[in-house]
Amino acid sequence: VAPGQSTAPAVLIHGGAGPLGPRLRDHEAEITLVLNEVLAGARDALERGTDALSVAIRCVEQLEDCELFNAGLGSALCADGTVEMSAAAMRGSDRAAGAVAGVRTVRNPIRAAELILGGDQVLLIGPAADRHAREHGIATQPNDAFVTRRARARLALGTGSEDLTHGTVGAVCLDAAGLLAAATSTGGISGQPPGRVGDSPLIGAGTWADDRVAVSCTGDGEAFIRAGAAARIAGLVDAGRPLAQAAAAALDEVGRLGGRGGLIAVDAGGEPALQLSSEAMPRGCWSAGNEPVVRVSA
Amino acid sequence: VAPGQSTAPAVLIHGGAGPLGPRLRDHEAEITLVLNEVLAGARDALERGTDALSVAIRCVEQLEDCELFNAGLGSALCADGTVEMSAAAMRGSDRAAGAVAGVRTVRNPIRAAELILGGDQVLLIGPAADRHAREHGIATQPNDAFVTRRARARLALGTGSEDLTHGTVGAVCLDAAGLLAAATSTGGISGQPPGRVGDSPLIGAGTWADDRVAVSCTGDGEAFIRAGAAARIAGLVDAGRPLAQAAAAALDEVGRLGGRGGLIAVDAGGEPALQLSSEAMPRGCWSAGNEPVVRVSA
Repeated sequence: VAPGQSTAPAVLIHGGAGPLGPRLRDHEAEITLVLNEVLAGARDALERGTDALSVAIRCVEQLEDCELFNAGLGSALCADGTVEMSAAAMRGSDRAAGAVAGVRTVRNPIRAAELILGGDQVLLIGPAADRHAREHGIATQPNDAFVTRRARARLALGTGSEDLTHGTVGAVCLDAAGLLAAATSTGGISGQPPGRVGDSPLIGAGTWADDRVAVSCTGDGEAFIRAGAAARIAGLVDAGRPLAQAAAAALDEVGRLGGRGGLIAVDAGGEPALQLSSEAMPRGCWSAGNEPVVRVSA
Repeated sequence: VAPGQSTAPAVLIHGGAGPLGPRLRDHEAEITLVLNEVLAGARDALERGTDALSVAIRCVEQLEDCELFNAGLGSALCADGTVEMSAAAMRGSDRAAGAVAGVRTVRNPIRAAELILGGDQVLLIGPAADRHAREHGIATQPNDAFVTRRARARLALGTGSEDLTHGTVGAVCLDAAGLLAAATSTGGISGQPPGRVGDSPLIGAGTWADDRVAVSCTGDGEAFIRAGAAARIAGLVDAGRPLAQAAAAALDEVGRLGGRGGLIAVDAGGEPALQLSSEAMPRGCWSAGNEPVVRVSA
């Protein structure tokens, strides 16, 4: 794409970065199918003129609804066997942002984040965030209902012993009007202490959108926080660096801090970036004039 | 200071940015006294060779212990009349970071953040963070014990109706070894919904330290989050911009998003920065070879 020539609209999605273990390999066909469906829905919506924020949130909601990903219904379990989820959404045009951390009953945490976006707060945590969502008509269910057989098996295997113990889902969008948005959602790390929050719901760490770039990160959350990963990319793009360079610099920084992961990003010109320092990251990309691309491993 | 000529050690502290109302004016002498005491203690410690992180945390602990500031014992009340506190600390040399959000029983939230720093997590929230602190010997007290007459009166007056409804305390340090650290602590906004978290405990928003700069912010937390304020300063300093310029650019960005506030920062050369877009910010600064300076209004 020549500089200045927009390829809007465009959308990228991810289903979390981590090792390429048996679970990902066993379900590669199913994961590929889901990613293709989500991408097709996003493309249709963008071609109909739907705004970037709505599309990014809808992508994340669909990924939350798929048990194969560590977010929403597929969330990993904390060490005590319960589920705690976090999510964030940000609209680039006015930097409106909404996030929740440590929610335990919201079926689609990204909808709770969307609800907050544009209000007086940016981040609500814990039971107050669950209550706020419920009172505004967001669907909830008991924490037990999130505890799947798959997640219990994952917890029993121990942290880091296999793939999908980490994980996040995310989407970034450039809409037909040239506006950007990002959304991220996670069930945390399998076996994490209750109360632990990673980078996903933190604006500037795991999620960011401004009028130049939208970013959603996944991987070793603490390293992404300490790298200020998403804000770092935004700062570099703002300083005129090409998106791919900026994204690589952020992942390098995460690596210097001992972390691995991946990220998706798109700039205002429609230039997509997919970067990965982990073995695998289920992901998909579509931009106007191109065929959708879906991949699982690196 | 000539470029390259370090003025290490150096320390800056703040007691929150906001309007210059009757409460600040009535207590200006007392506030000035406390700031001078904290600054003198920090100077002594730095001259004895104490590391930047320990000094920054000790400064914040002392400010948390003073009821005049909105953090620790002086915390504002949420809309439901309870206290929720947040804090973060970061060491520049290795970017180790620790933070807590929404704690309700920890006497000095900055000590709970210090405890987390260097472990596997960066951010713990809610009751799990209180429990973690208590189990590791950090002093706690019932939430009721934080509810002061002063805070109740503040809540009764309504949000934004006077000074000290917002507020934060913070410190940044450069130690004799040339290492940087930052620490921030807050009781949130008087009348805030329970569960609301601002920029103070968020690495890259209200608190940051790397090997070039340490930053602690205060003000309209949501705007600082949406500006990625602290990470923005770090990115600009990393790109070679003078600290004062970088700090001004971050506050400008906060202003474009409709927010006001202030920040303290110090770079690896010992150059201090104090920026303020609010009417008042109790603050103090000392660097080697200079007299301590303490101010309350702009």
